[in-house]
Amino acid sequence: MQIASTISQARALFDVLPRPLGFVPTMGALHEGHLALVRRARADSVAVAASVFVNPLQFAPSEDYTRYPRDAQGDQAKLAQAGVDVLFAPSPASMYPPDFSTSIDTGPIGDVFEGAIRPGHFRGVATVVSKLVNIVRPDALYLGQKDAQQTAVLRRMVRDLEIPINVVIVQTEREADGLAMSSRNAYLSPEQREAAPSLHHALQAVRLAMAGGRSKADAIAAARARLHPLAQLDYIDVVDANTFNPIETLSPPAFVIGAARFGTTRLLDNLWIE
Amino acid sequence: MQIASTISQARALFDVLPRPLGFVPTMGALHEGHLALVRRARADSVAVAASVFVNPLQFAPSEDYTRYPRDAQGDQAKLAQAGVDVLFAPSPASMYPPDFSTSIDTGPIGDVFEGAIRPGHFRGVATVVSKLVNIVRPDALYLGQKDAQQTAVLRRMVRDLEIPINVVIVQTEREADGLAMSSRNAYLSPEQREAAPSLHHALQAVRLAMAGGRSKADAIAAARARLHPLAQLDYIDVVDANTFNPIETLSPPAFVIGAARFGTTRLLDNLWIE
Repeated sequence: MQIASTISQARALFDVLPRPLGFVPTMGALHEGHLALVRRARADSVAVAASVFVNPLQFAPSEDYTRYPRDAQGDQAKLAQAGVDVLFAPSPASMYPPDFSTSIDTGPIGDVFEGAIRPGHFRGVATVVSKLVNIVRPDALYLGQKDAQQTAVLRRMVRDLEIPINVVIVQTEREADGLAMSSRNAYLSPEQREAAPSLHHALQAVRLAMAGGRSKADAIAAARARLHPLAQLDYIDVVDANTFNPIETLSPPAFVIGAARFGTTRLLDNLWIE
Repeated sequence: MQIASTISQARALFDVLPRPLGFVPTMGALHEGHLALVRRARADSVAVAASVFVNPLQFAPSEDYTRYPRDAQGDQAKLAQAGVDVLFAPSPASMYPPDFSTSIDTGPIGDVFEGAIRPGHFRGVATVVSKLVNIVRPDALYLGQKDAQQTAVLRRMVRDLEIPINVVIVQTEREADGLAMSSRNAYLSPEQREAAPSLHHALQAVRLAMAGGRSKADAIAAARARLHPLAQLDYIDVVDANTFNPIETLSPPAFVIGAARFGTTRLLDNLWIE
């Protein structure tokens, strides 16, 4: 695996990779969810690129940018082992010069749910992915279903701006007890870790109740009751997978989405209704 | 010259053009200024693409979108004659589906001067150029110096988002009396047409006075006096060519910029200080 830490190094490496080229953008602290993306890219492509970049643009000043888990050595070993050909791991200063001023406005789809709770988050995500794609110039972009709204925002950006790539969404990897894999799981205390799968169970309860004919309001009320007392719910809802507009039935493509805090750690989860 | 009117037709044609490919985006109603861009692209490139698209996103509701001059037949003849290989002339509906919602926020450089007078203008320009570049995938983009702030906004976007193209700025073409060529000159009455070159003369007066050691404020005051009584000045200033921040001296790269209304027609002009 070759490693580029500047944009010019990266361009030199990416320009000569064989095609098709699959690309997995990450913020590092890699777990099985990320490696599932790499495996899928590996299966689809002749060459595979990955990036590790904790993107300051997508964190609000009050958020966990500085304490976000970082493990450069471990990440490199995992990516090399999984068959990545080129890793792009730039510094924030090389991605964002002091007078950097352009951003991608994702429109209403980026202003609801996570976008309402984390203003500017999806603008930061869309901007960095747009920039990474212009540097890597992949044929396909691999994204994890776990960040469902992110997948919808980025698919919309790719469609609206005619970015010439395929977007491939890869199913969420879960721990044995159902907890969606996430780099932020590392923040959880033992008690919070035990409580965390109840978010997944609540989403399953919504799906089951609605599939059984109950209204969305009823289903969500029942699901809230299943949440562990340590969980502070931000939202549970059912949304159209393309627009993230709330919908009243489970008509595919849809997501049952949820977000809850366990102490200071926010976790997301969703079920994909295909 | 081949003509594509849909994005999929365009992709099919652009994918097989030889490289390097030069691209000239226009809003049609072509004049010698546009053809100078095509000639420059022709000289630099193996293949040349042009677009004709009056972009609704960059007009405010109160502006001249519907009455903007259109001449599809004349434009095609001029582009074919100038050696364009592929013309992309899409409909607004094909560029902007009803739920189109992504846009490029150009930051502070798009909020001053033309951006202050035309809120949303540069967001519309940056969004359409970003999209056109993703469809055409040129090696170089040719822009006219006449729209100086547009060149600065787009160069900044290309730099910030690492869009893999060269941006080439081509000098303004002028009528014999100094008036900068513009599609909007067609709106001018005979009296306004006679008055219009005074904007160019005012900018020259600013440059001359500052080169002679006078302060910017003095130079601009003197220049205002040279304007024809039919000209209603929006602004005259001297700005850094990269940031569009006002500067007090003629340090290159800079622009002496001006905008004035002649009746309901707004005209722009500038001098490039290299």
